[in-house]
Amino acid sequence: MKKILILMELNSAQREKLEAAGAGAVLRFSLPDRVSEDEVQEADIIIGQPKAEMIRASERLELLQLESAGAGAYVVPGVLNEKTVLTNATGAYSQAVAEHALAMTLMLQKNLHLYRDRQRAARWQDLGTVSSLAGSTVAVVGMGDIGGYYAGLVKNMGAYVIGVKRRLSACPDYADELVLTEKLDKVLPRADVIMSALPNTSATRYIYTEESFRHMKDSAIFINCGRGNAVASGTLYEALSRGEIAAAGIDVTEEEPLPENSTLWSLENLIITPHVSGGHHLPATVDRIVDICAENLHAFLNGGKLKNVVDLSTGYKT
Amino acid sequence: MKKILILMELNSAQREKLEAAGAGAVLRFSLPDRVSEDEVQEADIIIGQPKAEMIRASERLELLQLESAGAGAYVVPGVLNEKTVLTNATGAYSQAVAEHALAMTLMLQKNLHLYRDRQRAARWQDLGTVSSLAGSTVAVVGMGDIGGYYAGLVKNMGAYVIGVKRRLSACPDYADELVLTEKLDKVLPRADVIMSALPNTSATRYIYTEESFRHMKDSAIFINCGRGNAVASGTLYEALSRGEIAAAGIDVTEEEPLPENSTLWSLENLIITPHVSGGHHLPATVDRIVDICAENLHAFLNGGKLKNVVDLSTGYKT
Repeated sequence: MKKILILMELNSAQREKLEAAGAGAVLRFSLPDRVSEDEVQEADIIIGQPKAEMIRASERLELLQLESAGAGAYVVPGVLNEKTVLTNATGAYSQAVAEHALAMTLMLQKNLHLYRDRQRAARWQDLGTVSSLAGSTVAVVGMGDIGGYYAGLVKNMGAYVIGVKRRLSACPDYADELVLTEKLDKVLPRADVIMSALPNTSATRYIYTEESFRHMKDSAIFINCGRGNAVASGTLYEALSRGEIAAAGIDVTEEEPLPENSTLWSLENLIITPHVSGGHHLPATVDRIVDICAENLHAFLNGGKLKNVVDLSTGYKT
Repeated sequence: MKKILILMELNSAQREKLEAAGAGAVLRFSLPDRVSEDEVQEADIIIGQPKAEMIRASERLELLQLESAGAGAYVVPGVLNEKTVLTNATGAYSQAVAEHALAMTLMLQKNLHLYRDRQRAARWQDLGTVSSLAGSTVAVVGMGDIGGYYAGLVKNMGAYVIGVKRRLSACPDYADELVLTEKLDKVLPRADVIMSALPNTSATRYIYTEESFRHMKDSAIFINCGRGNAVASGTLYEALSRGEIAAAGIDVTEEEPLPENSTLWSLENLIITPHVSGGHHLPATVDRIVDICAENLHAFLNGGKLKNVVDLSTGYKT
């Protein structure tokens, strides 16, 4: 009988869902900061995220189902045996992260960050012109589940959506146009809003350079709800303080937590949230994660087709 | 020849549009704070908003086309002669105000006001659970153009929309259900978000009482982008400080500007903007206002049907 180790905080309904999916196997429930290395080494299947160094390329481990969308720590060579199948929870977070990104976009377009600051000083002050998604051009960089969800939201509000992605495909109905990532610099000058939803891979690290920001409109809004190392803090600081773009909203930073002495904190035209757009902050997200884990567990035990298999060489969903 | 007085700040394209619509009449351009009482008294048609006390029930004035959606100052008895037709610019503001209201809604749902405060103190702090429009119930109180536009936006994001209105009508496709305003107290306990887009009339003044807020969920978000006197500042303060509702976002206040010593300024769970959601803050709004004015001017001079005629007894569009 397969030994399944489940390392997630679950309510009883969610636990029952996994128990039903794992019927016929031995299920053990624990948590990442409580589980022992021996328990990890004995598992045939792990659902959740043990410390990567506990896995040590276990030959026994057949399936590692993550609860996150990113797989960064587990695609590092030496962590997983090449026979282990890695799956993630891509898709579970798309609603939460895309809504957070939209909230940031609208907050910046309507100057609500600046009005909040004025409110703190009891100042009733009109700050002038605002902008709108209607009639604007939005570049969505990274058209995975999160980027796609955000694209749909802004398209519904009247934006023209340029999806920027690694590989050519047919244009989905939530975008108006697709452009390859290698042509990013050609897209930036056209965009009123740039929303970045890139995962952390060697190809996306520091993809936004000083030059990228100079390519953007000085009225542009830059949103990053992907991974913080898509842009260096110093690069973002310069672009915002020099007015190369109008404003930015970031849920992720190059170094996390953002150091207390970072110059980014004090920028008026930047809003910062502490990597909270995803995670388990939206109750619906956890239900979706459990659904994905249960479906994959059932499929794996019964020879079905797995969802969200991660390519160990790219860190992307295959 | 009719004498037409135009009291608006216009660019040349907008001016030309009005000149074309008023072909054959005598057009005079000025501004509300520059125009003389004699000029107002000599006009057959006024487009824009002279000080109400300058009109003195002018018998000559056939049409007053406002550039605002509210008509409050001009429906006061004695301002307009009963033969004068009053039209407003309802519809021109709906996109700007509804987007502002949506921005406030999302900002509160995602705790972005609280994260902004933390940012000012260089604090990287996770504030926990957020909410979503998807699967939530939104009560839109006042289903005019603004309420209708907002209803469409939140419905697109997955909300169940209850439209609250004065008169029964067929349910529009941007709402799931319509309820009469007199049954408002029955709707409030069901709503996760209450968005108020009511004009200023005798029936809407202080429509939200202390009891109304007690009817709402303690997790409810209240948004007011209509008129400030729909709720007394003290009532709103008590509801928010006692936790009868979770948070509020208001673009309008009982007294405007909100007095510097108002207790509302310091509430953490309230966001305040200084009556800026409408006005001319969004460039698209001004174009829409000019379109309405030009259409009505042309219609009036050529015996066509007028848009946005205001009932002097209710202040509402007929």
